Amino acid sequence: MLNDRFLRACRREAVDCTPVWLMRQAGRYMSEYRAVRERYGFLQMVKTPEVATEVTLQPINAYDVDAAIIFADILPPLEGLGITLTYEKGEGPVIHNPVRTANDVAALREVDPRETVAYTIEAVRLTKQALADRVPLIGFSGAPFTLASYTIEGGGSREYRRTKALMYSEPEVWRELMGKLTSLVSSYLIAQVEAGADAVQIFDSWAGALSPGDFAEYVLPYVQQAIADFRAATGPTAPPVIYFGTDMSGMYSLLHQTGADVLGADWRIYLDNAWEQIGPDIGVQGNLDPNVLFAPWPEVQRRAADILDRAGGRPGHIFNLGHGIMTETPVENVRQLVEFVHEYSATIKANG
Amino acid sequence: MLNDRFLRACRREAVDCTPVWLMRQAGRYMSEYRAVRERYGFLQMVKTPEVATEVTLQPINAYDVDAAIIFADILPPLEGLGITLTYEKGEGPVIHNPVRTANDVAALREVDPRETVAYTIEAVRLTKQALADRVPLIGFSGAPFTLASYTIEGGGSREYRRTKALMYSEPEVWRELMGKLTSLVSSYLIAQVEAGADAVQIFDSWAGALSPGDFAEYVLPYVQQAIADFRAATGPTAPPVIYFGTDMSGMYSLLHQTGADVLGADWRIYLDNAWEQIGPDIGVQGNLDPNVLFAPWPEVQRRAADILDRAGGRPGHIFNLGHGIMTETPVENVRQLVEFVHEYSATIKANG
Repeated sequence: MLNDRFLRACRREAVDCTPVWLMRQAGRYMSEYRAVRERYGFLQMVKTPEVATEVTLQPINAYDVDAAIIFADILPPLEGLGITLTYEKGEGPVIHNPVRTANDVAALREVDPRETVAYTIEAVRLTKQALADRVPLIGFSGAPFTLASYTIEGGGSREYRRTKALMYSEPEVWRELMGKLTSLVSSYLIAQVEAGADAVQIFDSWAGALSPGDFAEYVLPYVQQAIADFRAATGPTAPPVIYFGTDMSGMYSLLHQTGADVLGADWRIYLDNAWEQIGPDIGVQGNLDPNVLFAPWPEVQRRAADILDRAGGRPGHIFNLGHGIMTETPVENVRQLVEFVHEYSATIKANG
Repeated sequence: MLNDRFLRACRREAVDCTPVWLMRQAGRYMSEYRAVRERYGFLQMVKTPEVATEVTLQPINAYDVDAAIIFADILPPLEGLGITLTYEKGEGPVIHNPVRTANDVAALREVDPRETVAYTIEAVRLTKQALADRVPLIGFSGAPFTLASYTIEGGGSREYRRTKALMYSEPEVWRELMGKLTSLVSSYLIAQVEAGADAVQIFDSWAGALSPGDFAEYVLPYVQQAIADFRAATGPTAPPVIYFGTDMSGMYSLLHQTGADVLGADWRIYLDNAWEQIGPDIGVQGNLDPNVLFAPWPEVQRRAADILDRAGGRPGHIFNLGHGIMTETPVENVRQLVEFVHEYSATIKANG
């Protein structure tokens, strides 16, 4: 690997400067992306390996980021299980046959993601070739809870009322659903590693809707299982696992138990406070508010510097946003941010 | 006061059992409320003191809650400043002339809430009479940030992009707007106390959208100012102030500086962890996930008991939900919850 900063940081090894990539870095804020998007629907982009590869590479060519992340989405892997999914303009994803009963869960098919998500597996393979070891490639999956909540609600949600009602009222059905989704998550991540992914991230974007007690009881065991199964299959040199959620500032101390190598933090907590709770033997990824990239550059710089100061040159920090980069983000701020993270963190490390 | 448990707990004095009330306890989940709502629009209810009084008393008559909270809404006090507000069916509040420029802010009128929110002040007076000291009456206001975010976005928001953009890009305009809203908050709370409110709550429902650094710099000083002005005006026996926000698990240690007597916690953190960060000299209100009330009663009970166990009989705990009670919540669970909090906490206190 020509640039292995990201992988070294995942293993908490010394690095010359802090690696940086941005969640959803291949996205609408880039004119190169919008040009492709004009010709294809979103799902069509995800399902056409050559297009997914092209889009994955766009931020690598535009900025000095230290990792690529495969262009894909967390929901299409559910289709193989029997879920009907569309993306409605302005509304986001819609699941037309939400899963809400024991029968619905029983009807979900067991799948081999090598077949049912063959398009993303192929995109990983093509991207890995095209990258030619310039930077590592990150594969990813939704986490069991976040997949379950979409599957039950039928789309995005603000209150997660049906999800929690099922969890509280029919724990057996919940466990059955979570078990099936956990198998999907681990086998999908394994398939991406077989195709060349150098690390994987598990997105539990909505787990922060839960209380710590409910997270510990109904969600954490499945994250642990998915990561353990992944490690068992990928062996002693298992690629690093990043676990990411938002709104979880009150439960970072629980996240140590996930078994992840790196935990992603959103911006709702100071990075050093998060790290104290998570524990020193795990890396931390984050945690700039994506909204900050709309600010004048000196304000962006001030906040990025604060995060790097709080990381204080400790091994195991990967700079990222606290959530996906937003549409309409000014690209000039993105370019400057990536450069600044490298330069400023190198100074901290030189002085530390 | 016949039942002063709530006020004693606000002052961290000994109580026979833990006081309990529920945010938005006068609301749609009650058939008595829906019967009134059929005859009036929502704003009409807020603006008709006799109706607001009737609705405020409904949960007091139905359950053994230890405090009443005036039926009102955080946004109507903005109308006097020049904001045009409607509530659209299914959409929530819409502000038709959002405030986004220096000129918009300059045009906001200075108001005396005794005049511009006379209907709620009168409702406080009527309710206080009708309660005849059965339980204390809580007045409330939105917090400067939450009012600002509605005012700038023009309604609810998921990303608060315009609010943060203004804050980052035009800090002088931000300060001007927050200053005006801070005056509104303190004078409105003072007017409610003059009319008979025994305590006040400041709702900063959306402050958790911020990073701790941005909260400390752009929001906290105004909360401090509002509370300090309130105390200066209401004198040495100033009624207790509760400050409540959601998604703030990463910044409870900052909230000690608000000057509030009690901090409201949402359900995204264990109550004892929140209290450790907040500090022992401040009370804590919370923190059951409102979704839990849709669970079978034994599951509700188990989670309520866990919260009371974590409070451990310490003085200063007020039991509440972590956010407003949801529509369609089964009233039988509400009734049982209130009873259980009293009975179970009395046992803890007897054994402690």
